[in-house]
Amino acid sequence: MDLYEAMSTLRAVRRLRPDPIDDAIIERVLTAATWAPTGGNTQPWRIVALTDADKKQALQDLYKPHWDSYLPGYEARLSHMPEDARASSIKAMDAGNYLAAHMHEAPLIAVFCFNPKLMTITDSELDRPSVVGGGSVYPAVQNFLLACRNEGLGCVLTTLLCYEEAAVKELLGMPEDWYPCAHIPVGYPVLGGHGSIRRRALDQMVRYNQW
Amino acid sequence: MDLYEAMSTLRAVRRLRPDPIDDAIIERVLTAATWAPTGGNTQPWRIVALTDADKKQALQDLYKPHWDSYLPGYEARLSHMPEDARASSIKAMDAGNYLAAHMHEAPLIAVFCFNPKLMTITDSELDRPSVVGGGSVYPAVQNFLLACRNEGLGCVLTTLLCYEEAAVKELLGMPEDWYPCAHIPVGYPVLGGHGSIRRRALDQMVRYNQW
Repeated sequence: MDLYEAMSTLRAVRRLRPDPIDDAIIERVLTAATWAPTGGNTQPWRIVALTDADKKQALQDLYKPHWDSYLPGYEARLSHMPEDARASSIKAMDAGNYLAAHMHEAPLIAVFCFNPKLMTITDSELDRPSVVGGGSVYPAVQNFLLACRNEGLGCVLTTLLCYEEAAVKELLGMPEDWYPCAHIPVGYPVLGGHGSIRRRALDQMVRYNQW
Repeated sequence: MDLYEAMSTLRAVRRLRPDPIDDAIIERVLTAATWAPTGGNTQPWRIVALTDADKKQALQDLYKPHWDSYLPGYEARLSHMPEDARASSIKAMDAGNYLAAHMHEAPLIAVFCFNPKLMTITDSELDRPSVVGGGSVYPAVQNFLLACRNEGLGCVLTTLLCYEEAAVKELLGMPEDWYPCAHIPVGYPVLGGHGSIRRRALDQMVRYNQW
């Protein structure tokens, strides 16, 4: 698939069919993640690829209460949105409800994790939330999502399970220095899957030479 | 360009020619960034696209001392590397020296910034470096890098200028709540540019169901 076509039609797909994914396809989307750049080419991330029914069910059990807690704030924000954004956000919320109830049915949940000791985090001493460690993980996540889109697989980046880090680490047997930071259910779409996306216009996102 | 071809040949290109880039091409690579997913579709990032000679020079002046400080640690790590990795890392170091001396000559430096108040950072309370905010910025950075590769433009993600956040913010007139987190020089390659990359094998990066 053409690069720009894949990027411009990559949606958050939250309704996923339980049908299995061929091993060769899973291998391709995982390999695409490994191609991403990382600081000093240290590749300080790993994926735990979950296909085991019990482990996926355990993640869903952990996820659902956090989605339920997140929902009221989401609903409150809807009332402040312009009409077209609200309609789109209500759809996303409904799909989020579906995901929270059915996450374990996805044939694959990819759990990305990272080791901060392998990273040079240049904003760790600043008086604001650090993000630079993410610069050596989320490019790989984006490669993975784009590869799923290329293969016709629905997928969505979730981070709510960071609230359950200790439980996720124990469930997956993750070593002390490694931490999960993205939980991506993957499967063939129930509905239309990928397609048109709603984003701000370029002139709202870019300034030239001066803010 | 095919998606997998772009991903698997995206290199860190640090030797960049000063030749200008057509406005239409700059617009395409910036637009590709806007397509990336973000938490709640809030798009809590912006780009300041620098083409102004004085501002690019100011960034290079800020960057060079930090590269020079980073270099001894980099050289120390070389001695612990296996032969083939060392050869590749020495090349990267030489290219890094070139970039530190010539960054201002790149026709474009894209400064990505973010606003943490627009983000739901689910790992902010954990007793380890937070990365989740980066999940709503670095996918856009990766789209931008892939788009540059697609257009034949060299580029490299740098984060050393986070050490000079206050100076960068003042130089670009960035508001209080916005912070720079990626500084990407872009230009046509001096040498071969993009091509083959060196990455770990899949079985070193992925576990199935259990660490």
